[in-house]
Amino acid sequence: MRIEARHRPASEARPADLVPTLLDEYGAKTKESLRDYLRSRGSGHLAYLYDLLRDYPSRGGRSLRPSLCIAAAKAFGGSLDEALNSAVALEILHNAFLIHDDVEDLSEQRRGRPTMHELHGVPMAVNTGDAMTVLSLRPLLDNCRTLGTYAAFRVLEEAERMGREAVEGQALELGWRRENAIDLDEADYLRMVLKKTCSYTTIFPIRVGAIVAGHDGPLLDRLGHFAFLLGAAFQIQDDLLNLTGDPKAYGKEMAGDLWEGKRTLMLIHLLRNVGPDDKAWLTRHLGMPRERIQPADVARVRALMDEHGSIEYGRAIAHGCAGAALHEFSVAFAGVPPSADRDFIEELCTWVLRRA
Amino acid sequence: MRIEARHRPASEARPADLVPTLLDEYGAKTKESLRDYLRSRGSGHLAYLYDLLRDYPSRGGRSLRPSLCIAAAKAFGGSLDEALNSAVALEILHNAFLIHDDVEDLSEQRRGRPTMHELHGVPMAVNTGDAMTVLSLRPLLDNCRTLGTYAAFRVLEEAERMGREAVEGQALELGWRRENAIDLDEADYLRMVLKKTCSYTTIFPIRVGAIVAGHDGPLLDRLGHFAFLLGAAFQIQDDLLNLTGDPKAYGKEMAGDLWEGKRTLMLIHLLRNVGPDDKAWLTRHLGMPRERIQPADVARVRALMDEHGSIEYGRAIAHGCAGAALHEFSVAFAGVPPSADRDFIEELCTWVLRRA
Repeated sequence: MRIEARHRPASEARPADLVPTLLDEYGAKTKESLRDYLRSRGSGHLAYLYDLLRDYPSRGGRSLRPSLCIAAAKAFGGSLDEALNSAVALEILHNAFLIHDDVEDLSEQRRGRPTMHELHGVPMAVNTGDAMTVLSLRPLLDNCRTLGTYAAFRVLEEAERMGREAVEGQALELGWRRENAIDLDEADYLRMVLKKTCSYTTIFPIRVGAIVAGHDGPLLDRLGHFAFLLGAAFQIQDDLLNLTGDPKAYGKEMAGDLWEGKRTLMLIHLLRNVGPDDKAWLTRHLGMPRERIQPADVARVRALMDEHGSIEYGRAIAHGCAGAALHEFSVAFAGVPPSADRDFIEELCTWVLRRA
Repeated sequence: MRIEARHRPASEARPADLVPTLLDEYGAKTKESLRDYLRSRGSGHLAYLYDLLRDYPSRGGRSLRPSLCIAAAKAFGGSLDEALNSAVALEILHNAFLIHDDVEDLSEQRRGRPTMHELHGVPMAVNTGDAMTVLSLRPLLDNCRTLGTYAAFRVLEEAERMGREAVEGQALELGWRRENAIDLDEADYLRMVLKKTCSYTTIFPIRVGAIVAGHDGPLLDRLGHFAFLLGAAFQIQDDLLNLTGDPKAYGKEMAGDLWEGKRTLMLIHLLRNVGPDDKAWLTRHLGMPRERIQPADVARVRALMDEHGSIEYGRAIAHGCAGAALHEFSVAFAGVPPSADRDFIEELCTWVLRRA
């Protein structure tokens, strides 16, 4: 493993705001390049499409995924410029997923504003998501210029795998809801999260960061293990915030997952721990279409979760995943010299639990 | 231009059923390979996703697009094997478009059966379309093996452009309906059709056929002109069949375009030729949501089209496009030696008008 990252002098303390600082810095670089890729090449009614394309990215967001990709590249001896196209593609694709997820979940709010389909109807939202998916290919093809053909193809291979995992994970989750799956366990949940969340939130960014820095082989598998655990902690915490977070900071409708019957770790725990009467009620409740659900039903599910310790259970598993991620970090990054980027990735393991 | 296609002996007459014969032959090869790419790599609930992926392709379809790609490759001296991955990717992507188009148009029937969202709900249909889009990337990456890196990248470039044109064309059409655009003209229509239909139905297949056979440069632009005219004739005829075709052969709901307020060439002609009272009524009618439209409204639009010769006008333009396509064929294929594949492409110019 060839490592050429700049060393962080041993004397330099790790700044307390390292994670938000690098998220801001790498996020700004990503958004600048992203704007170029989403620029309209047409006029008239086409401007309408491109206005919609720029909507979700302009609403903010933490830029976790592109920042992780850039930080991984730099930690492994690469540069921001080598990672930037892949980071931009990932951020465009992330926004494509958000638009279609919002349609599929009938979500009303995204980043504090009405969702795309609430604003422009389902047909335009579906097509705008498709457009973003298509446009994410352009920066990956431009990798040819910055990385050469071989590495550009390697990144495309990773993107194809990531995309496949993401739609498979989404199909699992939608299928569970559609078939009203009740008897799921933690392994089912983690398998779904591996595909639906981790594949593009952590695994692709970190593996591709290493690839653009010139690495390949077994290192990528070790990075994948670490990234899976980091991504699982992130998703469980996200689901916890949906139940318990500060509504102003959250940006989506609170307890939306309960309205949607989303199979979170907390719901799966609850279904495995309630008595037969409550389980029968939950089963009927989860089988109902969203429009027939009453606020009192949602409140009852939430109260049952408190009663049976499902929230605490979720927190414990999230902490367990984050702790295991820290261990895997120490293995996968053993040969990587100290740097702000290495620190950033390590810090993310606890940051995912702290974020509001 | 290096041409190595096998010559058709001058003595050999052109068989009358050349188009259906080659569509069957190349379509069967495409479907065989396509099945491998849509094979489930998972189990349990994942089988559910892959069952849905195989649904639309299993319903038949003429395989026009992949056949055109294969025929172009062979006419220009390449082989079926060199074109097959691109043809398969195109057919997968075509099915992705169909699934999302059906969601966006609220269509009820596709190839004689209920549409994907009618069978499995909008969320699963959106995700299944996304999955097909993602899976179309795999055969394009496999081009690396069959064509080498350079040509594989050239095909990816064409695919990115094609995908962008397709979502732009779809945005134009959806935007016209959403904003109830009334004052459109033939140039608007042809610009939309160039993007929405021709880009992936004729332009991509023919250009990519030439690319995999080792060609590039100005030839591709000449092929693009020909392909645009062929694709425009195809789309206008498709819209005519929606109004006048045999319901059994058509496979979609008849006059669905009138229910959807789709801006076809015939509707655009009608809006430019009716008197002020009928135009005011049409404007109100087209601004109504589909569920408020009555069968009598649709019948009135259809009767107005007969009264003002809009159907005949559409037929005349379709014939004009097909005739111009034949002329462009003679230019673009001037140096191409006779072969069944060259004949097939030429025959398509009249076949698109004959098909039921």
